[in-house]
Amino acid sequence: MQRPVRDMPIIRSLMEADFYKFTMGQLIHRLWPDVMVTFALTCRTKGVKLGRVLDIGQLREELDHCRTLSFSNSELHYLRGTNEHGDRMFDEPYLAEHLRGLRLNDYDLEVLSDGDLRLEFSGPWKTDSYWETLALSIINELYNRALLKNLSRFERDVLYAQGRLRLMEKIRRLRQHPGITFSDFGTRRRFSGDWQYYIDEVLAAELPGQYLGTSNTHAAMETGVVPMGTSAHELPMILTGIINQTASSVRLAQRDVVNQWWQRYGHGLSIFLPDTYGSSYFLGMLDETDLKRWKGFRQDSGVPEEFGEMVISAYEQVGIDPKKKLVVWSDGLDIDRIIELHKKFDGRIKTSNGWGTSLTNDLWDKTRCNDLWYGPLSLVIKPVRANGKGLVKLSDNLEKAIGQPTDVARMKELCGYMNTYRETCTY
Amino acid sequence: MQRPVRDMPIIRSLMEADFYKFTMGQLIHRLWPDVMVTFALTCRTKGVKLGRVLDIGQLREELDHCRTLSFSNSELHYLRGTNEHGDRMFDEPYLAEHLRGLRLNDYDLEVLSDGDLRLEFSGPWKTDSYWETLALSIINELYNRALLKNLSRFERDVLYAQGRLRLMEKIRRLRQHPGITFSDFGTRRRFSGDWQYYIDEVLAAELPGQYLGTSNTHAAMETGVVPMGTSAHELPMILTGIINQTASSVRLAQRDVVNQWWQRYGHGLSIFLPDTYGSSYFLGMLDETDLKRWKGFRQDSGVPEEFGEMVISAYEQVGIDPKKKLVVWSDGLDIDRIIELHKKFDGRIKTSNGWGTSLTNDLWDKTRCNDLWYGPLSLVIKPVRANGKGLVKLSDNLEKAIGQPTDVARMKELCGYMNTYRETCTY
Repeated sequence: MQRPVRDMPIIRSLMEADFYKFTMGQLIHRLWPDVMVTFALTCRTKGVKLGRVLDIGQLREELDHCRTLSFSNSELHYLRGTNEHGDRMFDEPYLAEHLRGLRLNDYDLEVLSDGDLRLEFSGPWKTDSYWETLALSIINELYNRALLKNLSRFERDVLYAQGRLRLMEKIRRLRQHPGITFSDFGTRRRFSGDWQYYIDEVLAAELPGQYLGTSNTHAAMETGVVPMGTSAHELPMILTGIINQTASSVRLAQRDVVNQWWQRYGHGLSIFLPDTYGSSYFLGMLDETDLKRWKGFRQDSGVPEEFGEMVISAYEQVGIDPKKKLVVWSDGLDIDRIIELHKKFDGRIKTSNGWGTSLTNDLWDKTRCNDLWYGPLSLVIKPVRANGKGLVKLSDNLEKAIGQPTDVARMKELCGYMNTYRETCTY
Repeated sequence: MQRPVRDMPIIRSLMEADFYKFTMGQLIHRLWPDVMVTFALTCRTKGVKLGRVLDIGQLREELDHCRTLSFSNSELHYLRGTNEHGDRMFDEPYLAEHLRGLRLNDYDLEVLSDGDLRLEFSGPWKTDSYWETLALSIINELYNRALLKNLSRFERDVLYAQGRLRLMEKIRRLRQHPGITFSDFGTRRRFSGDWQYYIDEVLAAELPGQYLGTSNTHAAMETGVVPMGTSAHELPMILTGIINQTASSVRLAQRDVVNQWWQRYGHGLSIFLPDTYGSSYFLGMLDETDLKRWKGFRQDSGVPEEFGEMVISAYEQVGIDPKKKLVVWSDGLDIDRIIELHKKFDGRIKTSNGWGTSLTNDLWDKTRCNDLWYGPLSLVIKPVRANGKGLVKLSDNLEKAIGQPTDVARMKELCGYMNTYRETCTY
């Protein structure tokens, strides 16, 4: 199955960006075209020194290649024709004026003296936003290539064989629970591009009713499944960052996201992402109309069971039947958790799953050997500054918090953040 | 890894014949060029109706293709240059006169009313002998292709993945016993040609000290390992068949094989194959000089532990140190048996292994489903008539006996065959 990779760039199309980059991108282009941001890479996997493991020349080559890419006519046709989340969801100003001319900005790459990698993207939000998932895909693939070099040819074969058997086992177990649905959210965490495309093709053929689609817009286009995505923390983070940060302005920024999103996409994409400054804070901001209109929530940090109960009771308090609403789990899922959560909430609220790392990067045995971690990485690229101001994300798991300590502390106070849950993100 | 197969014939070179076809072939060509034989296919796997499972048109096409093949100059060079079992083991009359002009004779193929397949090769022994392993390889591969058609594309991937992991597990366990050596004797039983070449390449890279070579002459040529083989039952079967079958003439035929083999190949290929008419009968025929000269025995039926003890005491009775002699196990081995036998005889007699089915055809889960057997087959192509007379093989396992019941009974009497061991050959 492996298509040749060594002499091919990892990213061959800007469409490999996650679908939510486009849904957010359209709003950013229309509403906040002048905001200047910096996105930065963080490796949350302890002990991994990317600057020592990766071939930095190759990394530059891959990133440089992305900067040569532009959207083709057919790719713009595909986006124009995308109607699964609402007809003509992308308008001509965005497609023809913005995307058609889009080229990625330069990046800032440096190996620090401790072996860590500093990778930052600074420039207009409306163009820099697209770097996130592309750059993450590249780093993951180069990391895995570095590990693969330590294996014999046969050991590499066996690694892929192991991946296939694990995929088969997932499929076998999912077939036992036909009520479970899920999407591939693992573009940024994938073992490699070839592997993700392989997985998407297999799932489309083997689990057509349960596999809903993929976050990789290009893979969706190639395999004919639905491009999937909701929205990301960067919207509330940046919109909060660029205004005066008072309790009411944070609240206003979050409201702005909810209102603008609904106005543009309506019911089709109406999935709240509530955890940027703590989910309970977000829920407190919503009114009954929001809860009635929107399809549901994405749960991306904290304890899913607690979140599920909180959301169900929020719906019930205002007389909404939770069985008609949806929660999308997307925080470090694996097949066991997916089945557990399905059993727990089946018949109480609709659920689906945005499945990342353990779907698209489940080949290694997760072992540490000679200072190398043979396993998936926990990498993120998040906005850290906007219009010169430091940005903050709290989330429902303090290990996932982003921002300078003083900024984080101020934001916790502003949002009345009470959560004390912490869980390490190994991958 | 898979090379394209569908548009390629299964057998692409006559060199894919097992190496022992050439070592025997040289003697047959020189000594018994006028003997006429019939080889016939037997499927020992119960309940499998090859005539219903195989695509008979495809089978004819593959067999017909073999008849178009001839030895190339480079292939004859390779045989001429083969010196691992003795320099210039193949002489010019055989290479230049016989092999250079060799074309395979026609075959006789018919689907019987009960769904069984009748496949026979009748003609001069000196040419028909080469059909055996080629035809078996073809039937096995076509059988597996028929089964693969019932699998989805992903299920096929998983099947190969399973095969790789099982191979890895064998390699892992063999590394724990560096004293174990073995050869691939699985050409005739292979899942497919591609799979056998893959296995041979992997073993050459991963177990260079323990993997000695392969019975597939072409694979040996391609991968650079030693072509391996001893001799087959067809020699004593046919030589016994064509003479008057009295006790002394059977004995003479067996002696003739031993003498002629030693005269041509000397120490290099001196491995007795004793079980054609029962190993104890064969041992009774050997004298001290044979035991001293020859390297050892191949054990191909019966109970290996009993055989090993019998051979050790035979050596000890004539004052030969068994530690300098060799037994090659080749009867339905798997990794457990290989390790068991190694532990049992290590330090008492040298051993090696001729590993067939479970090395080159270990992908299926061995299940019966909708009248189909998903697993390796127990197929043999054996000589059944020579110069018009019915042939017999008894072996040390009566389930492996070949011949008309009256012929078998007469031969048992002639050879004083006392064995009562029976074990079904599923594969």
